[in-house]
Amino acid sequence: MNGKVISNSCIRRLPRYYRFLGELKSKGVLRISSGEFAKKTGLTASQIRQDLNCFGDFGQQGYGYNIELLHGEIGKILGLSTPKKVILIGVGNLGKAVAQHINFESMGYQLVGIFDKKESLAGQIIRGLPVRNVSGLDEFCREVNPTVAILCIPKDAAAITVNQLTGLSVKAFWNFSHYDIKVHNPDVIVENMHFGDSLMTLSYRLNNQD
Amino acid sequence: MNGKVISNSCIRRLPRYYRFLGELKSKGVLRISSGEFAKKTGLTASQIRQDLNCFGDFGQQGYGYNIELLHGEIGKILGLSTPKKVILIGVGNLGKAVAQHINFESMGYQLVGIFDKKESLAGQIIRGLPVRNVSGLDEFCREVNPTVAILCIPKDAAAITVNQLTGLSVKAFWNFSHYDIKVHNPDVIVENMHFGDSLMTLSYRLNNQD
Repeated sequence: MNGKVISNSCIRRLPRYYRFLGELKSKGVLRISSGEFAKKTGLTASQIRQDLNCFGDFGQQGYGYNIELLHGEIGKILGLSTPKKVILIGVGNLGKAVAQHINFESMGYQLVGIFDKKESLAGQIIRGLPVRNVSGLDEFCREVNPTVAILCIPKDAAAITVNQLTGLSVKAFWNFSHYDIKVHNPDVIVENMHFGDSLMTLSYRLNNQD
Repeated sequence: MNGKVISNSCIRRLPRYYRFLGELKSKGVLRISSGEFAKKTGLTASQIRQDLNCFGDFGQQGYGYNIELLHGEIGKILGLSTPKKVILIGVGNLGKAVAQHINFESMGYQLVGIFDKKESLAGQIIRGLPVRNVSGLDEFCREVNPTVAILCIPKDAAAITVNQLTGLSVKAFWNFSHYDIKVHNPDVIVENMHFGDSLMTLSYRLNNQD
């Protein structure tokens, strides 16, 4: 990447590019100009060119982008072909929805373990995996070495669990809890799914329409 | 707001401020310096001062911020005290989790209707509301006038539903589907909860650690 610093916003747009190109690819479309690409994603052509230029020279003057090639390249940049072992903690409605709803495999993730503290859930099968009691988390991580944990648990439980897991093999969290992991663990990789923050942002926009 | 343009990133930080201040308030803390505030949120003091200055003059030299006051003010800016009627469409695991898990009331939302296309779900009670068949969506919207719709349905269904709802009273969407509403409806207010995009961003970060 030529030592360039890639902006956060650019990184966040890559999955969108990847999704769009994947759809076009599945429809058998072979190439797309940056103008059409922009129209379909609601961005500007120069934004897209600028983003993609951070990672390499993908377009061709007068031809546009080769969809299959660019889709593959963005997939590589996103690390989707690198297998990552994931555990999910907390099997309420949300945890269950995440376990069943997400196509982990297509993004290079492999769900290897599901945990809950409720004894009554132990052994229940979700997506082909038995729910395990969190008491076995340490041993499981030492054996299986998952690198990602999905937290679908309340804030206080999340604080304890993050402490426990960062001492083991886990390097990254997909965080649905309200616990601000980064504040206490600045070196850990975190993606937050803050439902409440998103809903408050929506409220702001509704309240501040022109 | 003195006609200032508020940046997207600033708007996205407001809910985080609101949450933190709410926690401090519930612990009985009366005031906080921008330095402490920064430490607790993982931001810089100047960032926080700059963000808050967009909306008014809240801090006091040598005293810091009055927590209860600032919490209330940010709540007002976010429009949390303005009642907004919401409908939820799609009662799979995800829709159910959203209906049960989100504290709508604390953010000024009122869940008024839950819809699904499955006949077998009709009449089931979720959060005190009966699941209605989507065939009654038009009539319901004309009677109740919800302004926000939560979409927990697949992409193709979302495209049709957005078209239908924008012709009725709905002005904003909390979108869990993969349908890019903004591309086809630039004037509509949208907050996306793209699970896949978030997971791909996490993959990128894992793949591009220093």
